[in-house]
Amino acid sequence: MIEDVIRAIKSSESFAIATHLNPDGDALGSATGLHLALKGMGKTSTMFNRDGVPETYAFLPGAGETLTSMEGIKADTLFILDCNNPERAGIDEKYLANFGHSVVIDHHQTESSFGDVRWVDPSIPATGIMIFRILRALGAEVTENIALNLMTAIALDTGTFRYSNTTSEALRVGAELTEAGAKPSHISDNLYNNWSMRRFELFQMAMASLEIMDGGICFMKVSTEMNEQTGTTQPDTENFVNFPLMMQELKVSVLLKQAGPALWRGSIRSKGEVDVSDVAEKFEGGGHINAAGCKFEGTYEDFKSALFSELSKIV
Amino acid sequence: MIEDVIRAIKSSESFAIATHLNPDGDALGSATGLHLALKGMGKTSTMFNRDGVPETYAFLPGAGETLTSMEGIKADTLFILDCNNPERAGIDEKYLANFGHSVVIDHHQTESSFGDVRWVDPSIPATGIMIFRILRALGAEVTENIALNLMTAIALDTGTFRYSNTTSEALRVGAELTEAGAKPSHISDNLYNNWSMRRFELFQMAMASLEIMDGGICFMKVSTEMNEQTGTTQPDTENFVNFPLMMQELKVSVLLKQAGPALWRGSIRSKGEVDVSDVAEKFEGGGHINAAGCKFEGTYEDFKSALFSELSKIV
Repeated sequence: MIEDVIRAIKSSESFAIATHLNPDGDALGSATGLHLALKGMGKTSTMFNRDGVPETYAFLPGAGETLTSMEGIKADTLFILDCNNPERAGIDEKYLANFGHSVVIDHHQTESSFGDVRWVDPSIPATGIMIFRILRALGAEVTENIALNLMTAIALDTGTFRYSNTTSEALRVGAELTEAGAKPSHISDNLYNNWSMRRFELFQMAMASLEIMDGGICFMKVSTEMNEQTGTTQPDTENFVNFPLMMQELKVSVLLKQAGPALWRGSIRSKGEVDVSDVAEKFEGGGHINAAGCKFEGTYEDFKSALFSELSKIV
Repeated sequence: MIEDVIRAIKSSESFAIATHLNPDGDALGSATGLHLALKGMGKTSTMFNRDGVPETYAFLPGAGETLTSMEGIKADTLFILDCNNPERAGIDEKYLANFGHSVVIDHHQTESSFGDVRWVDPSIPATGIMIFRILRALGAEVTENIALNLMTAIALDTGTFRYSNTTSEALRVGAELTEAGAKPSHISDNLYNNWSMRRFELFQMAMASLEIMDGGICFMKVSTEMNEQTGTTQPDTENFVNFPLMMQELKVSVLLKQAGPALWRGSIRSKGEVDVSDVAEKFEGGGHINAAGCKFEGTYEDFKSALFSELSKIV
């Protein structure tokens, strides 16, 4: 499959790179790493994400070139990275005619058939690793800035080599990216140690909302009211959901974030063999075995009990 | 220097391996990894640590063979790992005559002249990496159990490749140990996700004691009373000190743990260029640039202000 991607890159001169909505470090790092490499090869490249680049990822060199509108973007090849289809990437169907070919590169399990070329492999821990393989196969130079982007991608999706998806390849690529100039502590400081005092305050409030239920399942809440009280926004909740899993007895941690008067987004994390991706799909979401997202229209209590009921079946 | 260590191993048949008091993952993982490798080479080996193996590290295969008394231990070569001298390893001077040679392998900065062979290199992030280099140089087999021990050593001392000491070698050795059978998520679950509910409760109490002072320095407390209330012991505080550093504005985090009616132990962590090892040495301790330990006889308030006064000079 990677051969088809290489062929598509060699035979195209212009590229557009899109990633999923609410982009995370793997989406943005992979997109920006590929974007910089393509430009380094003398090609033209444009990045698109309707949601733009969250403040947390402003440290990624080049990420700021991301456009938030598809209007006027034309290219030989459209890349869809770290997701499977135009909807997840927030691309309106009417724009698809602006691209000669489409190439999907993703490691998510969610099914889809979109893409002239599809390289989807859930056994690979991060899309950033797939981009690294592509650059190596192309013989493209991995500059310090590219290394920083790809290392961030891998660091985020493996929890800096802590999650069960961590392979020896992830570590070896991490070593090569470090040699190419990525500084691991710079990345983890930006990913994990960049909290504002306000964010820390929101964290303390979320922790205070922690409810431990039967079966080692716990729930935490971040309401819009809590955001207002602390002067924070939804991206400030990133990573909160992982903390309760420090407790050995817990198997699944859920953070429910209010996105509107009667709209909630859920982040679900689990340990080991507990696969939460199917449950997330039942609530308009998806993801990986141990990390998934979903949403719900209704009250916090209703979302919590609906999710709890489904999660109870799998723990 | 490593050549001298290799020579010492090749010319000896029996070994004793000691590590520092209050042993952590790097001490125990390095000692046990070396111990298993020596036995695999047909040598005899005995491990010693006066403090024994904390519950947290009971998952290290082979660590349980550690003896807590030096009585009767004789060997051609005494290894002192992850510290510099017999005192830090809790070895009474009278026992030193039981060994033909002594070999120190350490990556701490603290000065000392003990050891017939000394390989001390603070640029190496973990003693576990030094042991790995030795095993490679010896052509020794790195079994799954050895890999798990050495990976734990490296994971702990680099914060799974997050701290500023993380080198590309650390990641590459991590990749090789993963190939040899170490499971990164198994190790991080044991290091970071093995908290009991009681420990989590103690954590919440420690967080509630958090005081943020001028200069981005913060202090947290764990008193014996807090331990009693939650049914926890001192090793349960491991890692607490790192959490406040999530706040970007903070540069130094200190956790003071009560070890007796008027005895306190301090754990100091810092970010980037802030070197806390000298401050720790002023309070009967030592360590690395970003991680050090110390102690104090007196009250919590006195220790806090004495430390704050010294730390204020370096932030």
